[in-house]
Amino acid sequence: MEYRVIYGDVDQMGVVYYGNYFRLFEAGRTELIRERGMSYREIEESRVAMPVTEAYCHYHRPARYDDLLVIETRVGQVRRASLRFDYRIFRRDEPEALLVEGHTVHACTDPDGRIVRLPKHVLAILE
Amino acid sequence: MEYRVIYGDVDQMGVVYYGNYFRLFEAGRTELIRERGMSYREIEESRVAMPVTEAYCHYHRPARYDDLLVIETRVGQVRRASLRFDYRIFRRDEPEALLVEGHTVHACTDPDGRIVRLPKHVLAILE
Amino acid sequence: MEYRVIYGDVDQMGVVYYGNYFRLFEAGRTELIRERGMSYREIEESRVAMPVTEAYCHYHRPARYDDLLVIETRVGQVRRASLRFDYRIFRRDEPEALLVEGHTVHACTDPDGRIVRLPKHVLAILE
Amino acid sequence: MEYRVIYGDVDQMGVVYYGNYFRLFEAGRTELIRERGMSYREIEESRVAMPVTEAYCHYHRPARYDDLLVIETRVGQVRRASLRFDYRIFRRDEPEALLVEGHTVHACTDPDGRIVRLPKHVLAILE
Repeated sequence: MEYRVIYGDVDQMGVVYYGNYFRLFEAGRTELIRERGMSYREIEESRVAMPVTEAYCHYHRPARYDDLLVIETRVGQVRRASLRFDYRIFRRDEPEALLVEGHTVHACTDPDGRIVRLPKHVLAILE
Repeated sequence: MEYRVIYGDVDQMGVVYYGNYFRLFEAGRTELIRERGMSYREIEESRVAMPVTEAYCHYHRPARYDDLLVIETRVGQVRRASLRFDYRIFRRDEPEALLVEGHTVHACTDPDGRIVRLPKHVLAILE
Repeated sequence: MEYRVIYGDVDQMGVVYYGNYFRLFEAGRTELIRERGMSYREIEESRVAMPVTEAYCHYHRPARYDDLLVIETRVGQVRRASLRFDYRIFRRDEPEALLVEGHTVHACTDPDGRIVRLPKHVLAILE
Repeated sequence: MEYRVIYGDVDQMGVVYYGNYFRLFEAGRTELIRERGMSYREIEESRVAMPVTEAYCHYHRPARYDDLLVIETRVGQVRRASLRFDYRIFRRDEPEALLVEGHTVHACTDPDGRIVRLPKHVLAILE
């Protein structure tokens, strides 16, 4: 999953604003789910939500205006009613230099917000 | 309505990103409605929506990081099924220097998105 | 230029927040300039800036979460010291239904913010 | 430090988008520094930067459209060349119900990005 940094992403230091990487994490996990054959929109339509309960990012090197970024997403730990995605972002033209890495933890809930087990059709995608 | 510019609002020129003024316009019209005795949340709960159909901004002078801004909002033209808000933004410490001015036009719709007349309880607030 | 709508773009009506289309307009004009052989970053490095002086958007139909959007950008009027870009956004899978259209007007300035004529290397790209 | 949630902050679940809390964290630490007698802009003018190296947020309960939030910021661990801020966010009208908590870790650098000791005038503010 690639992303080109726009003016609207950077702050006055000329680097991507620290909170905006979480948008890229979202784009990354959405594309991972899609590649495995389902969209997150379809998961929601099956009456399952996966709200974020924790988010973390470690900033190693700054991404700058007009950089072409690569967002690498992996499924981390999968539990009964929660799961974790791990992310690494680097520049397309310098893939050996890690810019940021982070993770998000998600609960699995029904439409009323009650915690439920990860259903089989979601587990099938994640494994 | 006042707003302090944060790092997350500015771009690498050190000025507020042009698209972010529309967030300030929204904050301005929300506070105007609240001052008149109703919140926009309550308008929505009365099964009326006012989606934006047009938005315009003219940028005269840049707002910068840490500036304390004042957002001045007025009700412009009110029609049968639409209305307009006008905005002016300046710095608290230099109120004679206009930074940006703009407007938004809103349709009045029911929850299914059908255009309807502005209901009396909304008109009462706007006039 | 294509863009996939993420959760971070939409509001609680499930549609792209009105101010976020201006981010897409920026992405559109950046890619247009790049296709013509120069990046906006290179224009800036040649000591020319093109700050936005006016922005306008007309919202016809909402874009929704997970929609794959197409942003069509054209160079509009080119004057001595300013120019205009025109934008149209529609969904990849329904190209006949216009979602939004708008434009931005840009001044041409030197690094100190003084208005200057559009230099030849920029004009060459735009025409 | 108070903040009123706008439409532009929430996603289609009607809750504040997970990445937007980091904007509130920034607003919180900026106001904490200002209350102690200096603005972050002045710190930068003294040739000291404090870029974020880590950011974390734990989401307990969602903040919703139009909620009036309170952002509580504290200085956490202060080391030689880095420091940590801790944040808690709750609703003004329900202060006993924690919505989110998190922290950011900041390096102390000179204008060229080299790690330096926290200077005395910054330490004086933080302690």
